[in-house]
This record gives sequence, C-alpha cells and structure tokens, in this order.
Amino acid sequence: MDLQTALQQLSALQQKLYAFRTASSALYLDGVTVAPRDTSEGRGVALGILAGEEHKLFSAAETGELIAYLETQKEQLDQEQARQVQLLRRNYDQLSRIPADEYMEYAQLVNQASDVWHRAKETSDFALFQPVLEKLVAFNRKFAAYYDAKKAPYDALLNEYERGMTMDKLDLFFGKLRERLVPVIREIGQVEQIDDSFLHKVYPIEDQRKFSDYLMEVLGMDRNHSTIGETEHPFTLNFSSQDVRITTHYTETELAFSMYSVIHEGGHALYELGVNPAYDYNCLAGGVSMGVHESQSRFYENLIGRSLPFIQAIYPRVQSFFPEQLKDVTAEQFYKAVNKAEPSLIRTEADELTYCFHVMIRYEIEKQLIGGTLEVKDVPAVWNALYKEYLGVDVPDDKHGCLQDSHWSGGSFGYFPSYALGSAYGAQMLRNMEQEIDVWGSVSKGDLSPITEWLKEKVHKYGCLLEPGDIVKQACGDFDPTVYTDYLEDKFRRLYNLK
Amino acid sequence: MDLQTALQQLSALQQKLYAFRTASSALYLDGVTVAPRDTSEGRGVALGILAGEEHKLFSAAETGELIAYLETQKEQLDQEQARQVQLLRRNYDQLSRIPADEYMEYAQLVNQASDVWHRAKETSDFALFQPVLEKLVAFNRKFAAYYDAKKAPYDALLNEYERGMTMDKLDLFFGKLRERLVPVIREIGQVEQIDDSFLHKVYPIEDQRKFSDYLMEVLGMDRNHSTIGETEHPFTLNFSSQDVRITTHYTETELAFSMYSVIHEGGHALYELGVNPAYDYNCLAGGVSMGVHESQSRFYENLIGRSLPFIQAIYPRVQSFFPEQLKDVTAEQFYKAVNKAEPSLIRTEADELTYCFHVMIRYEIEKQLIGGTLEVKDVPAVWNALYKEYLGVDVPDDKHGCLQDSHWSGGSFGYFPSYALGSAYGAQMLRNMEQEIDVWGSVSKGDLSPITEWLKEKVHKYGCLLEPGDIVKQACGDFDPTVYTDYLEDKFRRLYNLK
Repeated sequence: MDLQTALQQLSALQQKLYAFRTASSALYLDGVTVAPRDTSEGRGVALGILAGEEHKLFSAAETGELIAYLETQKEQLDQEQARQVQLLRRNYDQLSRIPADEYMEYAQLVNQASDVWHRAKETSDFALFQPVLEKLVAFNRKFAAYYDAKKAPYDALLNEYERGMTMDKLDLFFGKLRERLVPVIREIGQVEQIDDSFLHKVYPIEDQRKFSDYLMEVLGMDRNHSTIGETEHPFTLNFSSQDVRITTHYTETELAFSMYSVIHEGGHALYELGVNPAYDYNCLAGGVSMGVHESQSRFYENLIGRSLPFIQAIYPRVQSFFPEQLKDVTAEQFYKAVNKAEPSLIRTEADELTYCFHVMIRYEIEKQLIGGTLEVKDVPAVWNALYKEYLGVDVPDDKHGCLQDSHWSGGSFGYFPSYALGSAYGAQMLRNMEQEIDVWGSVSKGDLSPITEWLKEKVHKYGCLLEPGDIVKQACGDFDPTVYTDYLEDKFRRLYNLK
Repeated sequence: MDLQTALQQLSALQQKLYAFRTASSALYLDGVTVAPRDTSEGRGVALGILAGEEHKLFSAAETGELIAYLETQKEQLDQEQARQVQLLRRNYDQLSRIPADEYMEYAQLVNQASDVWHRAKETSDFALFQPVLEKLVAFNRKFAAYYDAKKAPYDALLNEYERGMTMDKLDLFFGKLRERLVPVIREIGQVEQIDDSFLHKVYPIEDQRKFSDYLMEVLGMDRNHSTIGETEHPFTLNFSSQDVRITTHYTETELAFSMYSVIHEGGHALYELGVNPAYDYNCLAGGVSMGVHESQSRFYENLIGRSLPFIQAIYPRVQSFFPEQLKDVTAEQFYKAVNKAEPSLIRTEADELTYCFHVMIRYEIEKQLIGGTLEVKDVPAVWNALYKEYLGVDVPDDKHGCLQDSHWSGGSFGYFPSYALGSAYGAQMLRNMEQEIDVWGSVSKGDLSPITEWLKEKVHKYGCLLEPGDIVKQACGDFDPTVYTDYLEDKFRRLYNLK
C-alpha cells in the first residue's frame, strides 16, 4: 500500500460511514415525524441492515489493515488526517468487538423500542415497556464489556458519551450540587412564589409556530440549512454542517415549553452549523461529545435565553405574537415567570435550578441498572422514591415518572449526566466570554452573533478535531463546578430576594 | 453450495437491496418535503454511495454465482423463488453492464437535477436546466445501450418501464387515439362549453387538507399504513406493502387539482397496499410496471372518480367541506365541471379526454431526444410547436411548457407513455369488472371496497410475481385500445350532447 492510495481509501471509508449514518438518520427522522403508525417493522429491517453494513465495514480485515498502515505513517499525516485515523481506530476497536448479529439485532430493537415506548407512555403502562427495556439494558451491559472490559460497565458507557467521565467524578460533582443547591431550594420554598399563571393561558399552536420562526431568527439560524419540525420529544439531528434539523413540541397552555425547546435545540443546531464544513462526510464532522453539546444547548437556553437582558430585548416582539395573553405582563414579570423554581415531575419542563436533580435521579437509576443492582421491574418504585427524596414530589403515574424520557427507548444509558455537566461547562464559558467580549451589551440589542462567533471559534468549528476535554479546557479553563453553583446560587437568591 | 444456503443468501441479498432502496427513498422523501433548501449536496453524496453499494451487489461475482447456481436448481424452487431468481437475473445482467462510477455519478446527478429543476421551473429559466438535462439525456442514451444494445435506445428505455413496449406499438396506439379523439375534441370546440367557474373560487388550503383526509377514507386507505403529505408534484412512494406515502399539492383556487391528485395517488397506493405482504423485503414487492401502476391510479381517478355515480355518492360530503363555495351547485353540475374537456397547457391539470395528447407530445420529444435527432436546447421550441399542432394552444413560457413535469429531472425517459397505456388498460379492466360485480351499485353507495377487492385479486396481490403482460391479460383480456377510445368517445359525446 502507498500513502496516497491509503488516504483515498480513508476518505472512501468515511464517506461510506457517512452515507449509512445519513440513511439511518433519514429513516429515523421519518419514523418520528411523518411515518404512519404501524410501519416500524419495515424501517427496522432496513435500519438493522444498514447498521450491519456499518459494522461490517469496521470488522473488515481491510479496514484494520488500512488503519494500521496509516498509523505507521503518522509523520506524513496532517493534524486532520491523524485525528481521523485516531478516531477510526477507537471506533474500529470498539465495534469490531461487537458481533455483527448482535449489533443488527440491537439496531432493530431500538427501532421497535421507540414505538413501544410511545404506546407505553401514552397509556402510562410500564409493563408494556418493561420487556423491551430489559433487553435494552442487557444489550448495554454486554456492550459495556465490549467497549472496555476493564471498566465497571456504567463507567464504560459514560466514557462513550463523555470521554474520561466516571462514576467517581460524577458522584463528586452531583454531591457538590446537592450541598450548595438544596439549601437554596428549601429557602425558596419558604418565600412567596413567583406568579407564572400567564404562561399557562391559551397560546394557539399556529401562533406558537410563528413565534418559533421568530426565535430561529433571533438565534441567527440559517433557514436555508436548518428546519424546525414537530415531534413528541424535541431533538436536533444533523446530517452535515450544511443540513441540521431541530424539532419542538407544542402544548397550547405551555408557552415556555416550546419557547425554550426551540432555544435549547437551536443551541445544538448552531454548534453543528458552526463545524468546519471541510469535515463534512468524514469522522471529524459533528459535535465532539454529549457534554459539550449540552453545554451549547443549555448555554443558549439558560445562560442567555433565561437572562433578564435577553428577555428585555425580545419581549416587545414576544408580546406582538401574543398581544392578548401578555397585555398586562411586563418584561420583568416574564423574566421571573420563565425562571420560576419549583420542584416538579417532568425533567424537560423543570426550571434551571431544580433541573440537575432530575438528572441526578436518572443517573442513580442508570448506575444501578447497568451495575446490575437494580432490576428493570423495580425502576418505577425507585424512581418514585428518589423524586420524593430529592424533590419532595409524589409521582402520580409512570407517564409522569419513569416513562417520560425517550432516552432509554433510544438505547442511551449514560447520556443524562451530560445535561448537568454541560450546564456546568456553560457557566465557565460565559465567565470567560465576558472577559473577552461585551456579552450583555449585544444581548441587550437582541444580537447573539458575537456570542455565536465566540463559541464557534472556541468550540464549534473544531468538530471532533480535538478531544472533548481539550475543547472544554480552551473554552472553560480547568473544570470547576463551583462556577456553576455560584452562578445558580447568585441568580436564584436575587430572583427570590433571598439573603 | 447447497440449496438451503443458496436460498438463505438469496433472501439476504434481497433484504440488502430492500434496505438500500428504502434508505434512498427516505432521503428522497425528506428532500422533497421537509429538507431545508440548500442541502441537496449532502443527500447527493449519500444517495450516490447507496446507489454504488447496490450496484456493487449486482456486479459482485458471488451474486452472479448465486443466481447461476439457483438457475440450475429450477425444479427445486417454488414459483416465488423461481420468479425472484428470474428478476434478479434480469437486474444483474442489466446493472452489471453499468460501470459502478457511472452509476454513482448518475445517482448524484439525479439528486442535484431535482434542485436545479425546481429553481428553473420557478423562474421559467430553461437555460438553467439545460446543462443538467443534457447530462441526463446523455446518461440515458448510454444506459439504453447497456440495457439492450440490440434495441433502438428509446425502445430499450421503454422496455424498462413496460416490458415488451416499443415505439412501433406506441406509434400505432397513439395513432388510433388521434384518429378517434381529434374529431371529438373538435366537435366539443363547436358547442357550448361547460361552466366550471365554481371550482376556481377560493378553497382554503386548511379545508382542502380535511377534504383530502375524507377522500383517503372514501378510497379505503388504511391510515395506520399510509400518509398524505404535500409536495410540488404529487407522487406515491412505497416503502413496503405496510408503508405507503402519497403526496398532493394544494392550490387555493383549484379544488379539482388536489382532489384528483389524491384519488390518483390513492390508486397507486391501494395497489402497493394490496401486494402480498409475504413479498415485503424481496424483489416481488411492489407494483409490476409503470403501465399497470398507471392503470390503477387512473382507474380510481377517472373511471371511478370522474363518474357520475361516484360524484352523486360523495357530493353531499363534498358540499359539507365547502358549503359556501358549492351552495348553488348540484351534483350534476359538479360532475360536468370536473369533466370539462378543453385543450390546455398543463398535463396534470388536463381533462381525461385531452390528457393523452399531453402524453403524446412528451413521447414524441423523448423519442427524438433519446434517438439523437433532437438537441436539448431545441426542446422548448419543439414542445411549443407540438402543443400548437395537437392542442391548438400557445405556450407562454417554459414554466407552463417543457419545465412543468418532474420526470426528466428524476431521470425518467420512457415513463410518460405508461400514463396513456394505463388509461387504456383501465378501460378494459372496468369492462371486465362490470361483468363480474355490481360496480355501479357499490359506487352509488360510496363503497369502493368491492372494486378494490376485484383489483386486488386480479392485479395488486401479485406484486411482481407475474409479468406485466400476464397481469394485463388476466385483468383486461387481449390489449385492445378501442375499448378505451369507445369509452372516451361515448362519455364525452354524452357529456356534451354530441350526436
């Protein structure tokens, strides 16, 4: 083999991976948006085969030989090529350990699970979902051993979502959050609660759709390269840096839900749209890790989107979409309402302060499920007990409890902690950004472009070129959760006039 | 190789083909429905690679060996297996003649062409589309030689859409239509024209959407296995017998356009939904030919959908969707209006009588383009001249002329004649159906299920098990275009009170 041939093969291999993943994404997107109800079987067959083809690529001897050859040529490779080889090596080592039939079976299971979960959630019927969840857990426990048999299974899964993350580190992190934030939550329980009743008037969905278009505009999303759709659970899907889709979910009496879903998913989308387009169709494309991704989405959602200057800047337009509903409401009242902190049942509707407790509960359950110390059938009971313990709320049924999130039905175990980590990263990014640019001056004018530009330079453009830890380091400095806890404590003490 | 292993490989091969085609369909569907505007590049890369994988499967030595081995085992195979081998042999012989790089390049071109055509049509700018169309024609001329170098190029392409069809047969067929129908059209030009002005009142799109749902119900489409979407040009896409999508296009002042698009595409969809589900994921799945497909769509659209008993049956409900617009209109007036025959510019809006002249014009142009006697740059001039000659109308611009249809941008040359052939098949099916069941008694009650059942038994359920000619024969008897011309002449002489 000569280097030039090898580099051509490297590019062809990655394009093929891109094609299989893009095809799977298109099938997935179709399945959760417009596909008729009873059609998952056919997509499952196709998804299983596509996953099998991807798996076959990685288990092929030629792929192993190509990677090994290129590793011997390291000095001849530029940074991007070297990183591609490194990432493919990781992927190869990991995937080549999963037998092709298990991999295909799993892809089909995940497709089926999504349907079953939807039905189970609709009817609050955990028993319907239980056998599927059992299979998903069993697969993930098995996969964890394939990924890294030396690690505890849950550590091996965490490492997939955020390289280097472990239960030890997360126990410390969540411990710190508990220590600092539980007192704040208690104090808020003692004072007068914020009135957010006007957010629950009737906001017709057709008007909310137009409002979403406006929010996309405020975020500076290029509509020639991004769209917004509607699904049960909002998400972002990137085909390439030139083609990113977000979805939201409208509820007529919950203005803030879709509003902050759009801003949250918009943050994910801006990340994807900001990746160097030269990385399209190779493995440097896309966001680098779930934690870094959540740092971007939650940055726009909370640090910017739930700040007073942002609300003041957009509020006249918000009122223009809903003149009747908001005619007696000031920007300050709106600001307070969208920041109302109150223990509740649904993660995606939780306020910024109590949110991390929702994550913590899922973390505890996943840790035990994957660790093998909790049986799937006992998930609802444990879930409900933890909600009572951490948040003091009673879970009325599994629809509002352990069936609320799509993650497990999608096969994601170890993803949830990224939400809390991302929030902590975001707080550190904001602190650094404030030292370099006039963040709040721009936000006050409703102009987020300097912020997006800063994030693009420090985070977005790199795609997967650097390790997540290195990106976090250059945007945040050393990881220090107290920046996040300070931010939260300060914000909510002011908001509620605590001392 | 032993038979059992070979049969397993046969099934795996076909599932893989299914997966690649399903993936491509999902990408295509996304591209024409929800994808942001400037995103075709990424889909093109993926589609090109998927097409290349499919091509590679067919050019693989193992595939050739598998097919050859199974051909030696003919006596051991059941009818379905034998037919699968026969169809794969055809596909193999054809595809293995197209070089992989040309095949992939073509797939990417078709993806790009769709975008360019959309833009060109919008701005009526043929010059924009011309270079792409030139490439498409060049590819198809080359492919024709790969398909069957012994045939004239256009005959080779026709044979792809309707096995056994030739220019000689079509010249005769269209000649007969011209001979019988031109006098009828002329006579209609001499008498008082039907008033259809009420069809062009304002019909809000939101109401038309609800009306479409009602039409899907009348057609008996199972909404758990089919959906209706919106695209520039209506079409039907089948993932499997369990998952079929149709699309329509709404224009506020054209009630009949979407109405008959839904019924037409619904006819395609009923065919696909009626195929034996045992054929899903293998090459017996789906409709057998374009001509037979069009026989179904145009059967529902015209023979049933534009009949007086059908209109009388559904009209009270039609009025209930549009009470203001139709308050002074009787069922008979509505029947006449949707059958108004008048030479016009747009094929998809043409009436049942003049429709085949639109097809004839495209046939003449394709024949010359693929035959090499017409250059792409001259298409607009020839188009406009033929419209003047056959239909007596002046084409104001290419948007209303040669840029109106999506077929060429999709790489389809030789498809158009199927529309006219299908209409002729349909007329013969109706004649035979009337001898076996009480067609008009059911239609009068708004119940199309006996009709769909008859078509399912004679046509739908077979999928690709039989040759198109055999299916036509068992549903129609020997092909005899005079049944169609008799039907048309009779219908339109009555409608216009001609002698």
